[in-house]
Amino acid sequence: MTAPNRNTLWATVLVEELAAAGVEYACLAPGSRSTPLTSAFAAHEDVDAVSLLDERSAAFFALGRGRQTGKPTAVVTTSGTATANLHPAVMEADEGRVPLVVLTADRPPELQDSGANQTADQTKLYGSAVRRYRTLPEPAPRPRALRSLRVTAARAVADATGTPPGPVHLNVPFRKPLEPVHVEGDVPDDLAERAPLAVDGRDGPFVEVSQGTPALADNDLDDVVDAIEGSDRGLIVAGPASQPTPARDALAALARATDFPVLADPLSGHRFGHGEDVPICGGYDSYLDACGEWGWPEPDTVVRFGASPTSKILRHYLRDSEARQFVVDSAGEWPEAEFTASDLLVADPTRLAGRLSDRIATGGNSGWRERFERAESEYWSLLDRRTADGSFEGAVLSTVAATVPDTTTLVVGNSMPVRDLDRFGQPRPAAVRVLGNRGVSGIDGVTSTALGAGSAAEGPLVAVLGDLSFYHDMNGLLALARADVAATIVLLNNDGGGIFHMLPIEDFNPPFSEFFKTPHGLDFSPVEDLYDAEFVRADSLAAFDSLFGESLSAPGTQIIEVTLDAEESHRIRDAIHEDVRAELQ
Amino acid sequence: MTAPNRNTLWATVLVEELAAAGVEYACLAPGSRSTPLTSAFAAHEDVDAVSLLDERSAAFFALGRGRQTGKPTAVVTTSGTATANLHPAVMEADEGRVPLVVLTADRPPELQDSGANQTADQTKLYGSAVRRYRTLPEPAPRPRALRSLRVTAARAVADATGTPPGPVHLNVPFRKPLEPVHVEGDVPDDLAERAPLAVDGRDGPFVEVSQGTPALADNDLDDVVDAIEGSDRGLIVAGPASQPTPARDALAALARATDFPVLADPLSGHRFGHGEDVPICGGYDSYLDACGEWGWPEPDTVVRFGASPTSKILRHYLRDSEARQFVVDSAGEWPEAEFTASDLLVADPTRLAGRLSDRIATGGNSGWRERFERAESEYWSLLDRRTADGSFEGAVLSTVAATVPDTTTLVVGNSMPVRDLDRFGQPRPAAVRVLGNRGVSGIDGVTSTALGAGSAAEGPLVAVLGDLSFYHDMNGLLALARADVAATIVLLNNDGGGIFHMLPIEDFNPPFSEFFKTPHGLDFSPVEDLYDAEFVRADSLAAFDSLFGESLSAPGTQIIEVTLDAEESHRIRDAIHEDVRAELQ
Repeated sequence: MTAPNRNTLWATVLVEELAAAGVEYACLAPGSRSTPLTSAFAAHEDVDAVSLLDERSAAFFALGRGRQTGKPTAVVTTSGTATANLHPAVMEADEGRVPLVVLTADRPPELQDSGANQTADQTKLYGSAVRRYRTLPEPAPRPRALRSLRVTAARAVADATGTPPGPVHLNVPFRKPLEPVHVEGDVPDDLAERAPLAVDGRDGPFVEVSQGTPALADNDLDDVVDAIEGSDRGLIVAGPASQPTPARDALAALARATDFPVLADPLSGHRFGHGEDVPICGGYDSYLDACGEWGWPEPDTVVRFGASPTSKILRHYLRDSEARQFVVDSAGEWPEAEFTASDLLVADPTRLAGRLSDRIATGGNSGWRERFERAESEYWSLLDRRTADGSFEGAVLSTVAATVPDTTTLVVGNSMPVRDLDRFGQPRPAAVRVLGNRGVSGIDGVTSTALGAGSAAEGPLVAVLGDLSFYHDMNGLLALARADVAATIVLLNNDGGGIFHMLPIEDFNPPFSEFFKTPHGLDFSPVEDLYDAEFVRADSLAAFDSLFGESLSAPGTQIIEVTLDAEESHRIRDAIHEDVRAELQ
Repeated sequence: MTAPNRNTLWATVLVEELAAAGVEYACLAPGSRSTPLTSAFAAHEDVDAVSLLDERSAAFFALGRGRQTGKPTAVVTTSGTATANLHPAVMEADEGRVPLVVLTADRPPELQDSGANQTADQTKLYGSAVRRYRTLPEPAPRPRALRSLRVTAARAVADATGTPPGPVHLNVPFRKPLEPVHVEGDVPDDLAERAPLAVDGRDGPFVEVSQGTPALADNDLDDVVDAIEGSDRGLIVAGPASQPTPARDALAALARATDFPVLADPLSGHRFGHGEDVPICGGYDSYLDACGEWGWPEPDTVVRFGASPTSKILRHYLRDSEARQFVVDSAGEWPEAEFTASDLLVADPTRLAGRLSDRIATGGNSGWRERFERAESEYWSLLDRRTADGSFEGAVLSTVAATVPDTTTLVVGNSMPVRDLDRFGQPRPAAVRVLGNRGVSGIDGVTSTALGAGSAAEGPLVAVLGDLSFYHDMNGLLALARADVAATIVLLNNDGGGIFHMLPIEDFNPPFSEFFKTPHGLDFSPVEDLYDAEFVRADSLAAFDSLFGESLSAPGTQIIEVTLDAEESHRIRDAIHEDVRAELQ
């Protein structure tokens, strides 16, 4: 490799090594200070680069891609406020455990704290939200500096994809000239000869990183096996995780070996895609709070994977039980905010599930699994009857979950969509990939997350989100044209914060309407003319069914708006919940 | 005061004290965890509250209001990624020295680091960008805790409005219930009796804060007086500052006393609003780089106020001179990134200018001022001829600067608009207030900044920004309806990053077009139907003149798009620059 100046050399080496370590995609926001990085990414053969204009959306796009692929995606910005725009997605990547490589350009050291333009303190900008932060040294055409740069790139990717995965931040100062102009003598002519390893790297990553993951010692495993084998009423709880956790086969094997019902969060990777022989339960949010009244005995053993479940009813069910609860987390981070778990297993979930399945020989559990199976069966048929007519938000999620074809990527927004999918999305064998930003559960960046996930999806992309989320990230729709991605976007428009109808603040008006419900009265149809999308309205559930079905096979992007009344939807949710209590058991 | 529970009590006391300390306006983003804060702000009689849905825009709105008023504006968000969305505006408020009181709701301590929903580490979230950070203790109905809360509020506002002003961050944890529901025994019935000062506060602020500002000792002042009196060729340079720095009368007096020309940045508060007797210069960015060729002698003494000037030509002129350069900054922060200043005067600029004016008795300076006056006169008449026909970006800024009436607030975007105003905005006596986010010079948040400034403006509001800025903060337009503000928005659409045509990267394509110029091809006219605004297009400078004039007296908001060719505009700028060199002197 030769380079016209040290900045070009530095950025090229950095990008080359990031690519060798596994970065395949980069979201680049335009800017001047980042010119060497942008130019290097744009030029790299093995990295797809997309130019996105709003850094906040760009970072969520990268996050969505990382959720989908499990691979680190790069985001590049110029210096200044551009960098701060990434913060929401970085925070979500941290809590949501999504690999992300953030590269912020910076002004050179002598301009720090000098009042120079577009210069802010970018040191540890994202605080504790990143797995690793480094401000790189000044670009230097020296062998040791370049080898150090290669190692830094390898480490950054290793940290982003470690246990747990997450964001890393490299802050990269450059001094002008930023463009690949020739600077006489800036890079010694014989540098590549003198230091081929530093300049040209190795054939493949500079450092091959083999990431071990924790595995239990045999005697610790024995303890878990004993507990499960001694259990009469066990449960597997699969909480949110970008990748199915444990892997799908491992979970199925564990379910078969233990005969435990699997309560599968819609974001767990297990609600959809399992065969009929795996007892996947998806209705728990509707019936678990009633089963005490029905005289169900308590569970005695719970094995929990993934993050804390979306369902508050499930969380409280677990909180109120005296079961022995094993929380499995490879990062040892105790994702359990009711504080009732009795055992933390710091172990790779897939490997642990495999080892447990191999060891456990349990024989049925006396009607326990059947209780869940019957409740599920009765619940979903009740729901079929109840959602057939009413046009409420849950019915839309129910339809979406039942309709989307195999290989669909389904991204659901926070606040109500994920909760409605949790309650009304019936498990089915179709391999539907459900993703959501449940790390911090913001309403921001949902569209960008979806399009980022879609940019790496093989099947159709469907996003379901509320109007506040849609408004928040309208800028994200620019990626439709720029990243060559198409989607079916279901916009549940109840004109404001529908979730607040579920909270006690509803009874206090003012301030309820103006500051909580916050009806905006926005007519979103003009986005059709702003972005590369078709905008249609469904005025009934039947109309939605039809438009949604058409969209799934249509080219391009359709935004299907369903206008709903949040209060009415909430009333129907309550009524169904009451019916469950009355009719089941 | 009585309160139904401790959260209500806590938030009410906090808001009451913030209001007593000077917070008059609050931007509230909807959310659940922030319910006590939102309810308290909404209920407070002396605080105007506006509900804005995108926290990033809400924070820039507050920033704009703070720039306009110099008073601290509050922003309230719920916990989680909502808080990170404020980061860009917080960064700008830091570098731009704008008072801002950020209140982020947080989950209670036991849910930190627990995997609980919507919980992230908000400790020192904005790093070194805030003047003060505190996570408040848990709400407690105890006299000492409440008095401490009142003092914390007073300190927060004092820090936000201190020297220099800037953002402060209070992170406020709450445990449910968040609504003003009655919780038996939560607040002792006799608390107000026992501790009236803690519960009801004082009549006025709990702590009256008197902020001193630095003043030079007499002998240090003597030195400055001597230097100025001994000067033959002195200059006053007024750099960017939200409030005119020094105050207008003080600068005018100093200019009269010293006979120094005043090179006034468009963001200094001095380009517009001075009488004809104050030698305000605004054309320096066009001619200062030529005056060496013209045989002008160098300045010998420079008194610099405000931040580093927008004009690179001016910065380099100062860098290359051997003048004694006094940088005046009340915060002692050396805002001088060419590193040529010889003296830092840590002093209140207005008071210093007043003291200097009283002391200095200087008699003219041998044709030096006349050089600048003649150059100015010739430059602006040349510009009149050159901008009459060509439809380029500078002509739009020239028209805007010449047309806006007295009392107008003019907000200019970064990248090219502020530079074009610098070069083409002729000084005039009309009291036009020019504001821009020159702290970090981001392209983000410009619309919201403008509308926030406009919400506190008495006269018309005009914003001039490029298409990338307009796209970045389209969400900000929601404030038009919500905050009852109207504007004339001039959208200079050159389909991408026009500024990159001025940089060497233009010669490298790829990646120039795709990753730097980044043409988006967006048709912005649909924003008319999305938001409360009229969208019109000007296809010539004459059409713009007419539409702009109409808009200034029309009710409601008009967005006037001027379609321009960035490359052509750049060519015209260069040609004018050449003409100046040839025709002046």
